[in-house]
Amino acid sequence: MKVVLDRDANIRKGATVIEGFPGFGLVGTIATEFLIEHLKTRVVGTFSYEELPATTAIHNGAVVQPMAVHYSDKHNLLIFHTILSVKGHEWNAADEVARIAAKYKATEIISLEGVNALLPGEETKLFCYGNPRFEELGAERMKESIIMGVTAALLLTAPHVSCLFAETHSGLPDSKAAAAIITLLDKHLGLGVDTAPLLKQAQEFEQKLKTIMQQTQQATTEAEKKNLSYLG
Amino acid sequence: MKVVLDRDANIRKGATVIEGFPGFGLVGTIATEFLIEHLKTRVVGTFSYEELPATTAIHNGAVVQPMAVHYSDKHNLLIFHTILSVKGHEWNAADEVARIAAKYKATEIISLEGVNALLPGEETKLFCYGNPRFEELGAERMKESIIMGVTAALLLTAPHVSCLFAETHSGLPDSKAAAAIITLLDKHLGLGVDTAPLLKQAQEFEQKLKTIMQQTQQATTEAEKKNLSYLG
Amino acid sequence: MKVVLDRDANIRKGATVIEGFPGFGLVGTIATEFLIEHLKTRVVGTFSYEELPATTAIHNGAVVQPMAVHYSDKHNLLIFHTILSVKGHEWNAADEVARIAAKYKATEIISLEGVNALLPGEETKLFCYGNPRFEELGAERMKESIIMGVTAALLLTAPHVSCLFAETHSGLPDSKAAAAIITLLDKHLGLGVDTAPLLKQAQEFEQKLKTIMQQTQQATTEAEKKNLSYLG
Amino acid sequence: MKVVLDRDANIRKGATVIEGFPGFGLVGTIATEFLIEHLKTRVVGTFSYEELPATTAIHNGAVVQPMAVHYSDKHNLLIFHTILSVKGHEWNAADEVARIAAKYKATEIISLEGVNALLPGEETKLFCYGNPRFEELGAERMKESIIMGVTAALLLTAPHVSCLFAETHSGLPDSKAAAAIITLLDKHLGLGVDTAPLLKQAQEFEQKLKTIMQQTQQATTEAEKKNLSYLG
Amino acid sequence: MKVVLDRDANIRKGATVIEGFPGFGLVGTIATEFLIEHLKTRVVGTFSYEELPATTAIHNGAVVQPMAVHYSDKHNLLIFHTILSVKGHEWNAADEVARIAAKYKATEIISLEGVNALLPGEETKLFCYGNPRFEELGAERMKESIIMGVTAALLLTAPHVSCLFAETHSGLPDSKAAAAIITLLDKHLGLGVDTAPLLKQAQEFEQKLKTIMQQTQQATTEAEKKNLSYLG
Repeated sequence: MKVVLDRDANIRKGATVIEGFPGFGLVGTIATEFLIEHLKTRVVGTFSYEELPATTAIHNGAVVQPMAVHYSDKHNLLIFHTILSVKGHEWNAADEVARIAAKYKATEIISLEGVNALLPGEETKLFCYGNPRFEELGAERMKESIIMGVTAALLLTAPHVSCLFAETHSGLPDSKAAAAIITLLDKHLGLGVDTAPLLKQAQEFEQKLKTIMQQTQQATTEAEKKNLSYLG
Repeated sequence: MKVVLDRDANIRKGATVIEGFPGFGLVGTIATEFLIEHLKTRVVGTFSYEELPATTAIHNGAVVQPMAVHYSDKHNLLIFHTILSVKGHEWNAADEVARIAAKYKATEIISLEGVNALLPGEETKLFCYGNPRFEELGAERMKESIIMGVTAALLLTAPHVSCLFAETHSGLPDSKAAAAIITLLDKHLGLGVDTAPLLKQAQEFEQKLKTIMQQTQQATTEAEKKNLSYLG
Repeated sequence: MKVVLDRDANIRKGATVIEGFPGFGLVGTIATEFLIEHLKTRVVGTFSYEELPATTAIHNGAVVQPMAVHYSDKHNLLIFHTILSVKGHEWNAADEVARIAAKYKATEIISLEGVNALLPGEETKLFCYGNPRFEELGAERMKESIIMGVTAALLLTAPHVSCLFAETHSGLPDSKAAAAIITLLDKHLGLGVDTAPLLKQAQEFEQKLKTIMQQTQQATTEAEKKNLSYLG
Repeated sequence: MKVVLDRDANIRKGATVIEGFPGFGLVGTIATEFLIEHLKTRVVGTFSYEELPATTAIHNGAVVQPMAVHYSDKHNLLIFHTILSVKGHEWNAADEVARIAAKYKATEIISLEGVNALLPGEETKLFCYGNPRFEELGAERMKESIIMGVTAALLLTAPHVSCLFAETHSGLPDSKAAAAIITLLDKHLGLGVDTAPLLKQAQEFEQKLKTIMQQTQQATTEAEKKNLSYLG
Repeated sequence: MKVVLDRDANIRKGATVIEGFPGFGLVGTIATEFLIEHLKTRVVGTFSYEELPATTAIHNGAVVQPMAVHYSDKHNLLIFHTILSVKGHEWNAADEVARIAAKYKATEIISLEGVNALLPGEETKLFCYGNPRFEELGAERMKESIIMGVTAALLLTAPHVSCLFAETHSGLPDSKAAAAIITLLDKHLGLGVDTAPLLKQAQEFEQKLKTIMQQTQQATTEAEKKNLSYLG
């Protein structure tokens, strides 16, 4: 797995890096998808890989790069957005994020994650690690937790890694949790995202996601049937 | 897996490439088999591989190359026809298709696929991606879908890839869906395939295929029994 | 897996190659075992491999090479006789057969196989592919079939490959089917095998084989027990 | 897996090495965790690996290196502390311990292990192998036992390896057994650990550990859910 | 897997090699353990490997090399004694035995094996292959058998290999069968082992072995529990 940046990527030094690999409640993935839609980012690179199954989606009539690097010129923001599980390749994926971050002298890498809520509650609680500003902006310092996947690999190997964890109550796609993260990121980075309609969009997102998930389920079933061939 | 073209393949630049790897409803495989029989194509290359099980068929008393490249001189058409599942080697297969397409400066690569019909219906609905002419010829633009396998790999890595998707109602071999694709391809490429007897043939094809599938089933059972040896 | 021929193998150019890897009804293995006993062949080479389990048999008080190349000087006949399953290494095994065949400019490679009989019947029906003489000698041209294993690999990669298929009614070792193949091979190659006692021997063979299979079964069970060690 | 020592590790020759890889009752891991907290060791190196899953913990608001080398300047003590299973990489892990031990001319390597208690009993019985001083300090010479894992690999390949085994009555984390080992190590190495509050701490440790284990359980469940992705 | 001989091994040319890898009824392992205890052999080499799990035993307070080469100076006898299963590495293990045998111009390699007794009987029946003296000393020539594992690999690849098979009635450790082999080897090699107390010892051995096996069972269970770690 390798990130290939476009020749004319034109990324400025000192960028902020945000990664949202698929995790608990798909929080990171939903939040980054939110960002790339609202910030009108442009794709500046894609992951090249042969280790993961060949899978893509057609969305709004266009082919979606399932693992892409987006860039917001206005906010000097690099966003790693992926909709494919990288299970078994987390170290490799983290290496690529860290490599790009180093190349553009990123000031920080922010990992977005969902964590299991221990108590039921109306409001989405946010936890943080790293950057002290997150606490000032309302997140609670994470005291004890087990971290896995790309975020764990980044924490163990890359510098300037911070994390935002949104509590989520089930493993199901939780755009409400993602919205809570966006609200905090908006304050932190001055993104000017209109956070008012976020929760409404959250509900729509969730609905859309459920449809996609159902299609995925179907697609997986199809994929299994695809093993079918004349000659076995 | 590697495609080895014959020395005297004599393929002209600017060819159109069609690929029909085994997929949902075997639509791509049936459609390409249709084409190579009606267009009296000649075999110009075969896949060389040791990653897939050694399997072949005797058909009409002749050994069938389970993965072959056919060429129609009249229509400057390169057809990748395979009756073996390439599961686990989709990227590699797509690379080979793309490599040959580039070598002969193919104007487009058309992937033929079956997709799950969401609603029951008498008529086979066609969807398309890429080439806008497909819409003019009656296919509906695919808005949302999950794509897997060789077609997904081509969409993510090769230029000028278009797709034709025929709705099919089950995972069983569906030559009616394949016939719908042929009818549209006939208009698109001016193949002059007599489409009148297509549906009748479709039924025969389907019957033949079912027999082959049964034999395959048997053969698989035999293959398992073959593990039998004197000494274990 | 590699075939290592003896230095003093003394094989003449233009040999006929016969292969009988374990397949359906063990027809090829039984038929080649028949041949090497009746033609008093000498071993001219063995397979060297570390990919398959270390297994052998003591037969008549002597160690049996489980995969050996036999040669009949009188008939200029090279026989690949193996009693081990080569599952997963069919391409490799076929490559070795083809390499030896090419080295001695073999006029033809004859693959011996069992095929599932579709209808019950008293007589063993023979089918053939390739050499037209087989039809003159009574075999029926094979029209439609699925072929797997070493024979499939040979058909797809080597020149001058013919096949003889004997119908068999179960997956059990079928020496009657093997005898039918021997009778035809006898006419084809003028082997002078006394075919009269063949069927009687067939029955004895079958009995002996069943005993060996039982022992194999036991041996396999023993082999599993062998995993036992002091320290696990 | 490789141990990377810090450039300014400043380890003196003649160090004593203690390893506590996760084993029966987690005795070695708990005991080494005890030591590094009480001796105020500093981290002088970490394991670099891509063979194990990317996993870490946040503990007291800080990221924990799941496999680290700690050093006590005062006692010239090198402690290999790991909270990750190295299953399948035991030889490699032992090689790294032995390599570092040789580099700093370690006088001995002490492996800490739990062993299944055969009889129920109030007191934790200690067994030892190697260094005769352990017997003088109250441990019983181990007569018969099966050893597995990193300790086994060290015993078979490295010089000057001694072992301390604490009996434990179940596979559950047993800090009482760990405390018994600490008490003996304290006498052996003159660590000056205040052993009085050890057992009380033991109970707290145990409680804390159970919480962590529950979180781990949850995290594992989450990890499985993480395989979830948009596209499968 | 590689056998590393000590620099000062001092093995004379013309040695007799005996191998007893764990097999049916652990006959070879028990018999070679018997020999090394009674002949007061010295260890002249060990197997170096990373392919098998790191496992060892403490026996009589000393670490046991689970795979070692012993030597009797008096009898010029090289004994390969192993208590670990080498499943999956039989070819490799046999290569090492054959390499050492060739290096010291061994006159013969004697493989010790257990075979399933077909009929119940009071006396242990011995079978042999190879060296005709074994028949003179009372063993029956083995006529038909399936051989697996290191012995099979040696028979297929090494020169001067003989076998002694002792009938055993179950897969359980059978020291009575091992004793029968020792009695014959004693006559063959003039070892001067006092065979009178052998059967009594056999019973004790069996008892001790059962205890070790139970501990192994426990150890295996422990080993499984060892997968336990803080972080999964």
